[in-house]
Amino acid sequence: MKKRVLTGDRPTGRLHIGHFLGSLRNRVEMQETHDQFVLIANVQALTDNFDDPGRVKDSILELLCDYYAVGIDFDKTTVFIQSEVPQIHEIFVYLANFVTIQQVSHNPTIKTELKQKRMEKSTPLGFFMYPVHQAADILCVRADLVPVGKDQAPMVEGTRDLAKKFNEMYGKAVLTEPEAVYGVEKNVPGVDGNEKMGKSLNNAIYLGDSRDELRKKVFLVYTDPNRIHADDPGSVEGNIAFTYHDLFNSDKSEVEDLKSRYRAGKVGDVVVKERLFEVMDEFLSPIREKRREAEERKQELLEKALEGSKKVREIADEVVGEMKEAMKIKF
Amino acid sequence: MKKRVLTGDRPTGRLHIGHFLGSLRNRVEMQETHDQFVLIANVQALTDNFDDPGRVKDSILELLCDYYAVGIDFDKTTVFIQSEVPQIHEIFVYLANFVTIQQVSHNPTIKTELKQKRMEKSTPLGFFMYPVHQAADILCVRADLVPVGKDQAPMVEGTRDLAKKFNEMYGKAVLTEPEAVYGVEKNVPGVDGNEKMGKSLNNAIYLGDSRDELRKKVFLVYTDPNRIHADDPGSVEGNIAFTYHDLFNSDKSEVEDLKSRYRAGKVGDVVVKERLFEVMDEFLSPIREKRREAEERKQELLEKALEGSKKVREIADEVVGEMKEAMKIKF
Repeated sequence: MKKRVLTGDRPTGRLHIGHFLGSLRNRVEMQETHDQFVLIANVQALTDNFDDPGRVKDSILELLCDYYAVGIDFDKTTVFIQSEVPQIHEIFVYLANFVTIQQVSHNPTIKTELKQKRMEKSTPLGFFMYPVHQAADILCVRADLVPVGKDQAPMVEGTRDLAKKFNEMYGKAVLTEPEAVYGVEKNVPGVDGNEKMGKSLNNAIYLGDSRDELRKKVFLVYTDPNRIHADDPGSVEGNIAFTYHDLFNSDKSEVEDLKSRYRAGKVGDVVVKERLFEVMDEFLSPIREKRREAEERKQELLEKALEGSKKVREIADEVVGEMKEAMKIKF
Repeated sequence: MKKRVLTGDRPTGRLHIGHFLGSLRNRVEMQETHDQFVLIANVQALTDNFDDPGRVKDSILELLCDYYAVGIDFDKTTVFIQSEVPQIHEIFVYLANFVTIQQVSHNPTIKTELKQKRMEKSTPLGFFMYPVHQAADILCVRADLVPVGKDQAPMVEGTRDLAKKFNEMYGKAVLTEPEAVYGVEKNVPGVDGNEKMGKSLNNAIYLGDSRDELRKKVFLVYTDPNRIHADDPGSVEGNIAFTYHDLFNSDKSEVEDLKSRYRAGKVGDVVVKERLFEVMDEFLSPIREKRREAEERKQELLEKALEGSKKVREIADEVVGEMKEAMKIKF
């Protein structure tokens, strides 16, 4: 039997090339070999966007289009929407007895995010409790595997712990203890050279960017700030144009040639970027095309995600039922 | 239209005479004048009894019998079981965005209970979040009124605040803002003179106590420790035998007569207690009798509570639906 795998996204904006290399590509492969579930975490998105629910709503449709565009097949992958599976909240409430607020406070993701969002002094309970709520996401589908980046490892570890504690307390293997899967981590820096690519940083190349937008962004890419003239010797380290060439240009010898000419002051930024634009446009244009197709079938994709949610409700109902039986509250 | 009123109990043991005077008696009256809902909070009971779910389960049946015994009419009052209304958890999760962990930490009930239960250093998240979860109990039935003791006032105030914040954020009166109702507070001390009567203190007279148990407990009641002989002048202040006479003996002139003779050293503890036993037995015997009847109809009462839960699910479904519409997550 295929192992069940869960991943997901918060609907807070469109997906970019960083998401593609970091996870979407992997999902397209995994749907052939695994029983794959993809969660659209709109309830969690509301924890820090409750004052702008329209954004979350629109982002759900954007996500669905992005998924379709990169090749996620809604018949092979079960895409589901968090708010359509209320059992997640129920599972969460029962899990919350097995974790202390001290443990949650020490969660590194929560710590970092609280700092980033300047919420230390006034953390909404909803935001604070979301690492435990994420455990309920994973447990509600009985996921065996959760592909994550290294920084999310504690979240999966925490979920295993909770499942184990619950199972041990009631002497029965009610909850499936999930395992983390570490993919090849591809960190994609922003066009401005920032280590992270993100909407709030305004430095992202989106999967849906038009040819014009792409061209504009590629020509803004951070290169070597010390190089004034095209015949100055330049540095390729920390030079985002070359970082992107490494990631998207499959002609490795061309990249090596460009790099050595760049170091020698024999090729200008314009040439390097013009070529980068071509390469990236070649990569993005089929995605862009499928995305346009998706835009016209938005409603249909949403229907598929609602069907997926129904399927998850049925699985989650069983999980809740078994939990309740263990806690002697099944009537 | 009748105002809707909500009260409830945690199923962690049988009910005693303190519960009767503090709330059950009031409920029996209110079911005639209000649209009354009574919640059996078994999910909250699990927050500090998750390691002993059998106790919670058994206590549900005990509660149902106690309700029936004191005259709660399951056709007039909607009795419901928390774990049968998963919408409560859903409402809770959405409310959690509108309260900070700092606010929860300052909740006086939580502060006191954490101290009592020595959980400051390792507070389960489930226990920590229960004041907000209680708000969901109240809001899920659209309660207008919540009868409380003075110490629970902050809980109802907190619920009003949450409802108001939610309604203001989305510009629509989605949630019913409840009001607290303060009853005549009857604090009933324990037989040992402790200010509170409670199971953990082992000083309670239960509604279901047999004649023998009652007699034994009445004769253990704390009186005047300085009085050695029956003809010593005694004190009636802080003397629990007289506190109970005041509460249960409807013959006020008899009580006054006993008090003045006690002060003068003209009546012994035994006489005072013998009479107290008669009075209390007179009060408890019809309750005890109805309780025996209830014991035989436990299953039927449980069925009624499950029907009540179904009715609440329907109301709560509407509430959740309106909340989701406001947050633009209704599909």
